[in-house]
Amino acid sequence: MEHSIKIVTIGGGSSYTPELMEGFIKRYKELPVREIWLVDIEDGREKVEIVGALAQRMWDATPYQVKVYTTLDRRAALVNADFVTTQFRVGLLDARIKDERIPLLHGMLGQETNGAGGLLKAFRTIPVMKEIISDMKELCPEAWLINFTNPSGIITETVIRHFGWKKCIGLCNVPTIAMMAEPAVIHKEAGELNYRFAGLNHFHWHKVFDKQGKELTSQLIGHINERNGGTPANIFQAEFPMELLQTMNLLPCGYHRYYYMQKEMLEHSLEEFKNEGTRAEQMKRVEADLFEIYKQPELKTKPEQLSKRGGAYYSDAACECISAIYNDKRIHMVVSTQNRGAIPCLDSDSIVEVSSLISAKGAEPIVWGEMRPAEKGWLQIMKAMEECTISAALTGDYGLALEAFTINPLIQSGSEAKRVLDELLVAHEKYLPQFREAIELLKEKGIESLDPVVSSLMKYGH
Amino acid sequence: MEHSIKIVTIGGGSSYTPELMEGFIKRYKELPVREIWLVDIEDGREKVEIVGALAQRMWDATPYQVKVYTTLDRRAALVNADFVTTQFRVGLLDARIKDERIPLLHGMLGQETNGAGGLLKAFRTIPVMKEIISDMKELCPEAWLINFTNPSGIITETVIRHFGWKKCIGLCNVPTIAMMAEPAVIHKEAGELNYRFAGLNHFHWHKVFDKQGKELTSQLIGHINERNGGTPANIFQAEFPMELLQTMNLLPCGYHRYYYMQKEMLEHSLEEFKNEGTRAEQMKRVEADLFEIYKQPELKTKPEQLSKRGGAYYSDAACECISAIYNDKRIHMVVSTQNRGAIPCLDSDSIVEVSSLISAKGAEPIVWGEMRPAEKGWLQIMKAMEECTISAALTGDYGLALEAFTINPLIQSGSEAKRVLDELLVAHEKYLPQFREAIELLKEKGIESLDPVVSSLMKYGH
Amino acid sequence: MEHSIKIVTIGGGSSYTPELMEGFIKRYKELPVREIWLVDIEDGREKVEIVGALAQRMWDATPYQVKVYTTLDRRAALVNADFVTTQFRVGLLDARIKDERIPLLHGMLGQETNGAGGLLKAFRTIPVMKEIISDMKELCPEAWLINFTNPSGIITETVIRHFGWKKCIGLCNVPTIAMMAEPAVIHKEAGELNYRFAGLNHFHWHKVFDKQGKELTSQLIGHINERNGGTPANIFQAEFPMELLQTMNLLPCGYHRYYYMQKEMLEHSLEEFKNEGTRAEQMKRVEADLFEIYKQPELKTKPEQLSKRGGAYYSDAACECISAIYNDKRIHMVVSTQNRGAIPCLDSDSIVEVSSLISAKGAEPIVWGEMRPAEKGWLQIMKAMEECTISAALTGDYGLALEAFTINPLIQSGSEAKRVLDELLVAHEKYLPQFREAIELLKEKGIESLDPVVSSLMKYGH
Amino acid sequence: MEHSIKIVTIGGGSSYTPELMEGFIKRYKELPVREIWLVDIEDGREKVEIVGALAQRMWDATPYQVKVYTTLDRRAALVNADFVTTQFRVGLLDARIKDERIPLLHGMLGQETNGAGGLLKAFRTIPVMKEIISDMKELCPEAWLINFTNPSGIITETVIRHFGWKKCIGLCNVPTIAMMAEPAVIHKEAGELNYRFAGLNHFHWHKVFDKQGKELTSQLIGHINERNGGTPANIFQAEFPMELLQTMNLLPCGYHRYYYMQKEMLEHSLEEFKNEGTRAEQMKRVEADLFEIYKQPELKTKPEQLSKRGGAYYSDAACECISAIYNDKRIHMVVSTQNRGAIPCLDSDSIVEVSSLISAKGAEPIVWGEMRPAEKGWLQIMKAMEECTISAALTGDYGLALEAFTINPLIQSGSEAKRVLDELLVAHEKYLPQFREAIELLKEKGIESLDPVVSSLMKYGH
Repeated sequence: MEHSIKIVTIGGGSSYTPELMEGFIKRYKELPVREIWLVDIEDGREKVEIVGALAQRMWDATPYQVKVYTTLDRRAALVNADFVTTQFRVGLLDARIKDERIPLLHGMLGQETNGAGGLLKAFRTIPVMKEIISDMKELCPEAWLINFTNPSGIITETVIRHFGWKKCIGLCNVPTIAMMAEPAVIHKEAGELNYRFAGLNHFHWHKVFDKQGKELTSQLIGHINERNGGTPANIFQAEFPMELLQTMNLLPCGYHRYYYMQKEMLEHSLEEFKNEGTRAEQMKRVEADLFEIYKQPELKTKPEQLSKRGGAYYSDAACECISAIYNDKRIHMVVSTQNRGAIPCLDSDSIVEVSSLISAKGAEPIVWGEMRPAEKGWLQIMKAMEECTISAALTGDYGLALEAFTINPLIQSGSEAKRVLDELLVAHEKYLPQFREAIELLKEKGIESLDPVVSSLMKYGH
Repeated sequence: MEHSIKIVTIGGGSSYTPELMEGFIKRYKELPVREIWLVDIEDGREKVEIVGALAQRMWDATPYQVKVYTTLDRRAALVNADFVTTQFRVGLLDARIKDERIPLLHGMLGQETNGAGGLLKAFRTIPVMKEIISDMKELCPEAWLINFTNPSGIITETVIRHFGWKKCIGLCNVPTIAMMAEPAVIHKEAGELNYRFAGLNHFHWHKVFDKQGKELTSQLIGHINERNGGTPANIFQAEFPMELLQTMNLLPCGYHRYYYMQKEMLEHSLEEFKNEGTRAEQMKRVEADLFEIYKQPELKTKPEQLSKRGGAYYSDAACECISAIYNDKRIHMVVSTQNRGAIPCLDSDSIVEVSSLISAKGAEPIVWGEMRPAEKGWLQIMKAMEECTISAALTGDYGLALEAFTINPLIQSGSEAKRVLDELLVAHEKYLPQFREAIELLKEKGIESLDPVVSSLMKYGH
Repeated sequence: MEHSIKIVTIGGGSSYTPELMEGFIKRYKELPVREIWLVDIEDGREKVEIVGALAQRMWDATPYQVKVYTTLDRRAALVNADFVTTQFRVGLLDARIKDERIPLLHGMLGQETNGAGGLLKAFRTIPVMKEIISDMKELCPEAWLINFTNPSGIITETVIRHFGWKKCIGLCNVPTIAMMAEPAVIHKEAGELNYRFAGLNHFHWHKVFDKQGKELTSQLIGHINERNGGTPANIFQAEFPMELLQTMNLLPCGYHRYYYMQKEMLEHSLEEFKNEGTRAEQMKRVEADLFEIYKQPELKTKPEQLSKRGGAYYSDAACECISAIYNDKRIHMVVSTQNRGAIPCLDSDSIVEVSSLISAKGAEPIVWGEMRPAEKGWLQIMKAMEECTISAALTGDYGLALEAFTINPLIQSGSEAKRVLDELLVAHEKYLPQFREAIELLKEKGIESLDPVVSSLMKYGH
Repeated sequence: MEHSIKIVTIGGGSSYTPELMEGFIKRYKELPVREIWLVDIEDGREKVEIVGALAQRMWDATPYQVKVYTTLDRRAALVNADFVTTQFRVGLLDARIKDERIPLLHGMLGQETNGAGGLLKAFRTIPVMKEIISDMKELCPEAWLINFTNPSGIITETVIRHFGWKKCIGLCNVPTIAMMAEPAVIHKEAGELNYRFAGLNHFHWHKVFDKQGKELTSQLIGHINERNGGTPANIFQAEFPMELLQTMNLLPCGYHRYYYMQKEMLEHSLEEFKNEGTRAEQMKRVEADLFEIYKQPELKTKPEQLSKRGGAYYSDAACECISAIYNDKRIHMVVSTQNRGAIPCLDSDSIVEVSSLISAKGAEPIVWGEMRPAEKGWLQIMKAMEECTISAALTGDYGLALEAFTINPLIQSGSEAKRVLDELLVAHEKYLPQFREAIELLKEKGIESLDPVVSSLMKYGH
């Protein structure tokens, strides 16, 4: 890397792209970006053009000479890239609607990352990621890949362990949100506290220390059920039981509510579905509004409304990570990277989400040490579930897919769970080439979704 | 050990004792028992006297001079014992009624080993086992302890790892039932097949080979949903999904139905409760009938009716294990013993249920080797759950008890699960000295069971 | 396998073959051999013909109709083999002379298995073994391979882990010798004692128990320095220090003398070399005499003189192992097989030499459990040395070969050790195709052995 | 810790103390030391008074009001200490003379850390360290212990794992020397390079990266045999073989010369002993000269001559470490601390020497990841040796001491090694209370050193 940098963003038509631009703009002096390529597919052409035009206007409003390209030709974009970011969603929000509706219609959790829908999202994403890595090996073999496509941990594990691309870092905004929100709760500044995270993506715990080395974890536990306690806004704030957390002496992440208060979270999710439909359907409306705003030619900055979309800090974390690599910053960030011993109860080459030093070498975990028995058991079954999911996604083996569903703690096993899997496979047929044979069999057995919304999405080729 | 043997059976008043006698009688030539002590507590005085008299009549009908003692004085019985077997139930069947009713009333599984009730059973049993081991250290420091008090794996782990009594072997009839039933399904003799089991108590898998070394596992999987396929009769035979088992290429144990078909098993359990009450209540009636039969002075053999009680082969397995130790038989049995590497994904000093050689040295596992990711994850979370349960039982820490409930895959976490824990603790107060402080707090908060059956059992001091 | 068996012995011209025949003859009723193929190479043509004729005479003197074939065509022999045994020595005893003389001339140990010579033996054997396995995959894919070519552990590890042939068992006579000799020392019968071995080939320890489960290890330690204490006759009997063994409470194998009494063993080895030449040279004379005897047409049994050759019990162990597989015997033998957790401080897929059950399934280790720190450290460095040796043998990487020499505890590192490696590589050039490039470089630098014996062996193409 | 700091230095009479003072003086603004207590024993009274007076003069020449106390009363000094540094040598240099002379007289390496002498140094130090920790638990339970008494890794492991004092960090100057010297070799500035170290004290390897993330290790390997290549001056610079290092692609530490070029290092050590006596005797003369200089009342700074003593940077590293903790610096240092997974092939709670972040929380290792087989094997046997040494030191078990000698790769095992152990134990009798019984037995057998120097040191009570 010399002094001007080429960034390629796959899924560039995302509504998050303005935040990414803002992140690069405010870091320009340390991170002299030269060109930014926003790549999308035919179905995203309109969006990428709108957001690309806004992005260029944002740069043009600065003193910096940066060119934003929009393209549907991924290979053209990747040539000699320095950093590639991935933020695409295979099948767009319509696919998420299916991921959420189908389980919910069967009384199961409609959670789009670790739940049933998340597994299908992995099944859809992994074949596309395989092609991207294949292109990168040819066109930009020295590039860093910064992934924030969900399920981020599973995707990062596949890229590093199975596709052999070591220069990959997975990002998520959940740790950032906690580190931004918590200090205020105990009347501290963000920089004052020393954070250590360990676990898996959407399934990690953390500890907090002050500048004298004193642990503040239990103090923060006392505030965890308050508003603004560090849980992302999109997660229902069922109350954590204090006795459990005090015994653990660890701060769980927001997604642990699904595991520690399973019944409440399921009930809330079914209730919300009844009243407001799926989150994906809500997001689709938000997104449509956003793109109307993005079209306005006088708009030259990230609009305030974007923050409603959720996912705040994701793009900023990506910019910070890129800058830390470029500038050999040797700073603390929480990322998905190879374990290498940081969490001794998981394999050395598993991907974990963990406090790491980010430098020109990439991410190096800081050791966490032995987990308590409960967290150890949780992590190990979640990693097993991730491994089953990846094996299923790579092979198209139906038995492995069913195994991932069976072992997933957020899915109640049995014939109804199998039915949900079957309907999801059929509903996403278009994006699951590896499961073709299994899906044919299901269709012969007459598996289909009885939901008119899902049926109509399927009919129109989504 | 010289040529005459002293056996002590704690919980001697159990209705299973006649099977144990039968097992010793038929092995007398290889296992020259001299005296058998049936130990019980005041609440079991009548039962132990009835069963003790029957036991003596059984021996007197043989050519062998064996004396059966019944006593409430455990310490007197233990002096110079060669083998101690434990088959007691703290709180008798009334406690099991509470273990089953309270979860079922809240819509949760009423399963007495791995479920909510099983955890409470561990909480009640561990303090008593601690006293027994303390007595044994003093009175019969060379004795072998053969445990079949449930949850057998958890109790064996506590005895070996926490109380430091290495000469302990845990037994269960589930593997025996499979090894007795399966060969017939594929038209083989029992002795022809070579079995390998590995996992935890009530949570193991097995593989089967013929005398030419050919694996028959997948063939047996094809028959697993048939009647008499090897699942204990007390477990509802929900259908295993074939695709899952074929992908695993392992034969699950009967208890895996609770994990692989969670919804069906829960629904059946609630239905059965509505129609027939708890299994414990049914057992109580069966047991009352049995003791009427046991009283008949002309009865001198194990009555047929005992087989209805369930638990067949348990006592016979105990006799076989004792004989294998005494005679240095070096034979294959499936027992709970220290892992020592047999299942590499679990700690070396964890207790596992595994194919072992039984000799004068005790049990030595035959290696199983690496588990597939899914079974590895399952085992690790189940072991974590066991460890939390033991820690809670040893310390009386409420947070740990809640953690065991939260991590248990058969309990849906949340405030209802917490309520079940709370009611169970209060209901079993008498047998939970270590939780006194936590229970006081719960009672101050007004926790009690609203079920008239449970309330009445509590009122009468059980 | 049906009822008649085809055996193929690679290195069939070995002087040990008559013991192998004797082993099959005495087991004929349980192991109905049909034909035995003795395979050798051109250089061994005369020997294989002599020994083949004797073998046929041995069978003809029995009531059994067994045909012995001798051939130089390995592929013809392997077709549909049931069991293949490997007992060949690449380069014959002349190669062993070099393996021993070159280190000894530089004042280093001339030990043909774990020492410098052993590493070269591995380098020569592995390329040949690769070809054998490649033939077997094609010609007899269901056959069992029973290896006793040294270094037996290293060769077995290469076959199983690197060439992927799982149906391979490594054998050695060292455990057998101990189990045969020790009981007499304490006035017991062989069958009475229960043995447990664990470690690596030529680097294992054992424990002994009586039929009451009482450990006799420390009692046997008290006799270890006596004649006939269980150490193979070819190893100098330097005295083990009692304090060390008592602290360990383990019986070391004979080869541990090289590690625990390094100075005495080296001095004795140099002294013996001065007085009697290398062991290989002595063996060459013994072997010449043996073949003279084998030629006698009236000889129809294994001659007594074979026992002088050393290596007793090797062949018998092979026959026993084959019979245990064929008859699904499920008996205890000590073999080299995959660890699978038996010794938890080594990788699951490492090859270890360990007490195992032998059945139709092959070898299954019985767990040993955690090692003490010292034995753990020893095993781990020895396994590392084995892994470096195998990597060097597979790749021809000179740095890896030097690393194996540097880490080997029987080789004092430094420039003299490097010189020994260099001379050995040049001396064995003919059998080291994988090191061609490295050897060319060494020859350009003028590396050669200054020993007239070695030089003359090299000149005549050996 | 508030704003003024109490430092206690045990072994305060060391000739290194002026460097320590200099380190504190130059950091005063960030590290406001209030008082410094130099503690020594009666035998060191004169030295501690001389060096204490110099230390006070050094502070008095600055604008800072810092009081230096000298005392023989360790308990008085420890009260409310913030940081305790340990740099004492039990038995002073006279003990080191014995550590070096006795092995050398028997033709063995006279190396005072990992060799025979180092093990005895551990045996002498551990009982004293036990008392210090016992005092600290009572008098300054919140203090940090910064240890640089050798063998530093072994002592740190004992303090943390066996005495349970978690707030302990072990320091050594070997990594610092490498990081100071190497950049110049390739024309770089120190701060430019990113270093990663892993291994054990005096037995670690490192890798180096530039600010673009490019690895420079192989480039530095090319310079390792040059003068000033990073090996401490007190180690003979035998040439590393390039082929070995290139295959490893790791930079070994200076002490690896003893392991990779064992013969050359031994020969040089014996030669040096013949010509110049032991290093300890040389040091004794250097030290005497130094104390003459320290006495000069006009001396108010660290004298130049101290650098001749060796051990440069040790004290400065200690000051830097203290400041990093006090100021929550979160910087990279190479220290001995608990592994916690950083080197996955060693136990999580083993002490390793590894690149760590130093903050108010103490030291947290950065993961290194899997080692290559050779380094893994080396580390594991060295750690086993350390564990044997510690067990022997804690228990006084002679067999364990002999085991540590037997497994130590720098000691050729056998009866001569045992003789060296025996003589060393007798020679150090005064400082080995735990071995009293074993030493009595040795004396009864007439074990004594035949060396007049050692005998005279023993006679005069040292």
